[in-house]
Amino acid sequence: MLTLYGFLRSGNVYKVRLLLAQLGIPHRRVEVSQITADTARPEFRAINPIGKVPTVVFDDGRMLSESGAILHYLANGTPFWPQDRWDQAQVLRWMFFEQYSHEPAIAVNRYLRVARATDGREAQVAWNHQRGMAALGVMNTHLAAHPWFGPGCYSIADIALYAYTHVADEGGFDLAGFPHLNRWLVEIRAQPNHIRLLQETNAAPVTNLDGAAVPAPPPA
Amino acid sequence: MLTLYGFLRSGNVYKVRLLLAQLGIPHRRVEVSQITADTARPEFRAINPIGKVPTVVFDDGRMLSESGAILHYLANGTPFWPQDRWDQAQVLRWMFFEQYSHEPAIAVNRYLRVARATDGREAQVAWNHQRGMAALGVMNTHLAAHPWFGPGCYSIADIALYAYTHVADEGGFDLAGFPHLNRWLVEIRAQPNHIRLLQETNAAPVTNLDGAAVPAPPPA
Repeated sequence: MLTLYGFLRSGNVYKVRLLLAQLGIPHRRVEVSQITADTARPEFRAINPIGKVPTVVFDDGRMLSESGAILHYLANGTPFWPQDRWDQAQVLRWMFFEQYSHEPAIAVNRYLRVARATDGREAQVAWNHQRGMAALGVMNTHLAAHPWFGPGCYSIADIALYAYTHVADEGGFDLAGFPHLNRWLVEIRAQPNHIRLLQETNAAPVTNLDGAAVPAPPPA
Repeated sequence: MLTLYGFLRSGNVYKVRLLLAQLGIPHRRVEVSQITADTARPEFRAINPIGKVPTVVFDDGRMLSESGAILHYLANGTPFWPQDRWDQAQVLRWMFFEQYSHEPAIAVNRYLRVARATDGREAQVAWNHQRGMAALGVMNTHLAAHPWFGPGCYSIADIALYAYTHVADEGGFDLAGFPHLNRWLVEIRAQPNHIRLLQETNAAPVTNLDGAAVPAPPPA
């Protein structure tokens, strides 16, 4: 059974949790967070020297990090990753777009607002807001002409983009002006075996790096 | 013959040019730059609504953007992209690392220094310097134990990471403390059909968006 290291509220970790749920892959989860500096602990750096989450460790000890690479590995051979070479390029196009042009703006403003850490960072927040709204506009324009970011079907590109888009309001991004984006958000939530961000569906108990049980989040 | 839109000094465009050269794929290049705001011109937005370079357009009109997606598409079925599922995940891991943790720090400081635009941005430059040095350290540590970022061979992950690493000094990053990185840089330059950043090897003339010829750069 694979082990997923990362924290429940992280959108990047949620991407992997959502795909694991939709593929029905059982796993352990260890709560490791940048926010509490768990990712800097020697115990975690021994697992992933870069200290990034999500990190996945397989039973044979192999380690994989970067959410996009983990999604690709798990989805390979399933309907979440297309077979056609051109279709694959489209999926990767949107996954790279998410990591370069979407996540750094939207996830960072969400973090700063939730942590009430925007004071003194007004210029950064304003710049991220501008970049994030532009990225959401690009998504909305695409979705005006296409049902999904995957080629004709829900894919790991949709999962990657959904993770921070569906909580963009927590970062101060108003989605009201993006009707196609809102249609897509509703359709993603209707996919089989969808889980919400704070929804634990895995049977295995969640622990921290010290092996102690982590309590489940309050029901939504 | 495919058309590559992007400017000669761009590391992200260079990734594609280097792979095209090493695969021996003839192409046209149209010089389009963010710096001169060509990417905002309606003529270019009609080709790529997002306005990002590199953008590739194939003879049948299909368009692809995001350097990582273009590299994947062109390398698929060649030795630059592995066949094994785990090996593929490793290549993507480093390509996502490059776009998220490496390029935004190193390429931006290079741009700001070359454009003499660091005044008033000291905090951003210092933060990028810290992030960039950390990314270079991660690369050096990996290369202490592995010859390449590809699984045992030169791959599109190496091309992606080489593009801005080999000009990191222009961004104020001192590579002297990274011996394994320097060994890797030398070995990349020794690969068959390697081209330098400013080296045009393509037979087709380079034009701008107006169709006018763009003069070749001075010889190195």
